[in-house]
Amino acid sequence: MQVLQNDTFLKALMRESTSYTPVWMMRQAGRYLPEYKATRQDAGSFMDLCRNAQFATDVTLQPLDRYPLLDAAILFSDILTIPDAMGLGLSFEAGEGPRFERTLQHEADIKKLTVPDMADLQYVFNAVSSIRKALNGRVPLIGFSGSPWTLATYMVEGKGGTDFLTTKKMAYTRPDLLHHILETTAQTVIQYLNAQIEAGAQAVMIFDSWGGALSHNAYIEFSLNYMKKIIAGLTKTADGRKVPCVMFTKGGGLWLEAQAESGADALGLDWTIDIGLARARVGSKVALQGNLDPAVLLSTPAAIEKEVANILVSYGEGSGHVFNLGHGITQWTPPENAAAFLEAVRKHSQQYHINK
Amino acid sequence: MQVLQNDTFLKALMRESTSYTPVWMMRQAGRYLPEYKATRQDAGSFMDLCRNAQFATDVTLQPLDRYPLLDAAILFSDILTIPDAMGLGLSFEAGEGPRFERTLQHEADIKKLTVPDMADLQYVFNAVSSIRKALNGRVPLIGFSGSPWTLATYMVEGKGGTDFLTTKKMAYTRPDLLHHILETTAQTVIQYLNAQIEAGAQAVMIFDSWGGALSHNAYIEFSLNYMKKIIAGLTKTADGRKVPCVMFTKGGGLWLEAQAESGADALGLDWTIDIGLARARVGSKVALQGNLDPAVLLSTPAAIEKEVANILVSYGEGSGHVFNLGHGITQWTPPENAAAFLEAVRKHSQQYHINK
Repeated sequence: MQVLQNDTFLKALMRESTSYTPVWMMRQAGRYLPEYKATRQDAGSFMDLCRNAQFATDVTLQPLDRYPLLDAAILFSDILTIPDAMGLGLSFEAGEGPRFERTLQHEADIKKLTVPDMADLQYVFNAVSSIRKALNGRVPLIGFSGSPWTLATYMVEGKGGTDFLTTKKMAYTRPDLLHHILETTAQTVIQYLNAQIEAGAQAVMIFDSWGGALSHNAYIEFSLNYMKKIIAGLTKTADGRKVPCVMFTKGGGLWLEAQAESGADALGLDWTIDIGLARARVGSKVALQGNLDPAVLLSTPAAIEKEVANILVSYGEGSGHVFNLGHGITQWTPPENAAAFLEAVRKHSQQYHINK
Repeated sequence: MQVLQNDTFLKALMRESTSYTPVWMMRQAGRYLPEYKATRQDAGSFMDLCRNAQFATDVTLQPLDRYPLLDAAILFSDILTIPDAMGLGLSFEAGEGPRFERTLQHEADIKKLTVPDMADLQYVFNAVSSIRKALNGRVPLIGFSGSPWTLATYMVEGKGGTDFLTTKKMAYTRPDLLHHILETTAQTVIQYLNAQIEAGAQAVMIFDSWGGALSHNAYIEFSLNYMKKIIAGLTKTADGRKVPCVMFTKGGGLWLEAQAESGADALGLDWTIDIGLARARVGSKVALQGNLDPAVLLSTPAAIEKEVANILVSYGEGSGHVFNLGHGITQWTPPENAAAFLEAVRKHSQQYHINK
């Protein structure tokens, strides 16, 4: 068994003291890196890359090789692996977003939906094992899944969106059908994340990318409740160590109090919320992960340093903060600006961890 | 001078007592109405419709003729009239959003930007006069403008967006240039709204459609501060009566406390915030306008009634609430569902206004 050489990220998620604020970047293995684009070209399609354990391992480790200040690795995969395994027929058209060949809009189709065989997702677990081995204890590996609500929007709409009118119409007209989709998906996510933990994931994150499109009540009913159920069903420890769970509802800053009661160890924050106000609202119930606007990385090292310092001063002293972007890094980020970001976090964060 | 026969909307904005909760719908003159589509076809392009006072009057009054329970009319126009008058060359391609021929990305172009001659916007003021006359005192007429930040995103990006990376890059790299755009736009909006008030608008609304894309600090600096400046420069009364101002930052529910100090008489709310929690946060400083998810209008009259009742019970007793959707009504709304919405507001709201 490899010894974990840097557990700053895991400690911060559990609100244990660390000597600096750990950092990683959502979508850190991505198109802003020329080495990623090269591997992607070798692999073929995006899903070909995800399905090949060696390629997935290569791209997962690329940002770690370039940026020694990263404190975590995240499985290279996609949230839509689950609907794909459910038989909906995922494809990515160039220049468009993801598309599903089949949608879940009719009662007969919805009632046929069942938890897929995890063997159909074995390629994901193989990638986790391969990455964990390749990491060789450098930093912890994060596994992840989409939230049931977020996955349901793709399954019902058949593609990405912003309004989710078909899914919401179902929520208000036939909530029983939507609940069947959500419950089936939640049971799937439990198996999926536990298999990732079994394969070597040392923390897990639930991406609720579209929960922020709901009303307060609808968020609780159609998104948060299913994430709670997932968290309750997760394997709690691996290798004798707690496997922390981060829950991230993009656009969900209004509902932090409810999220803090979900059982998650940490909450992801997008950049719209002041992290100090967020900390005051959740108290000592959860750690916080975030929350620089990824657009800031398009500016200058000096501007990046200033914005990083502002977030650190707002969070204040003590543990419980994992620095991150408030959303995935954009493909137009100059790689040297990502370096400036990571350096600023390390440089400015140490003062908040003295004797804490 | 026409006597205003229904001032429930104006009273609620000023937190004066009324016998029921007044209601209108953002984009109530729109594509969900067959009569709108017929006039639009007669008029030609969308901007042809906006530029013709008779057509603009016809479509503004159509929802009032169909729905006697509406408590306000809103000028039929577009927020992009201002950048168009600034010479950026607005067009709407079928099936696409708005496009500008020229953008504000280079220092030389930005520094040339000045407040346009209001004569180039005279068609808007003519429409206001014509609508006010045609209303003949039935309900008050709302004038409106986009916020400087929201207009700036279109002027910099050249089109609508969701990430606003070019505008944000300017905010973090050359804030001086963005502030020049925002200041020039704010001065324009003051003249523009005051000319609407002069022409007959009895309340005004500032649509900050994209303020919610900013971080807390950036929202204050690049959006809220300019809306404050506008509100301070507005004509306060017309025909001896206060002209209330509603400020609406979509996605801005995290920042209500700051918004409540802006000088606005009322704040618009999108559907993501629980209106009772919003009321508790702003106290008696402002009225609130909102906030049913427009997607609910795609469901059934029974579901609509239930959701309306939930919002009313959450707001609770007393004045200071104007019912509305949390965003514009969608084009797929069955017109009879809009009627069910308005009837539900009237039916369920009266109990909260007894002896208040």
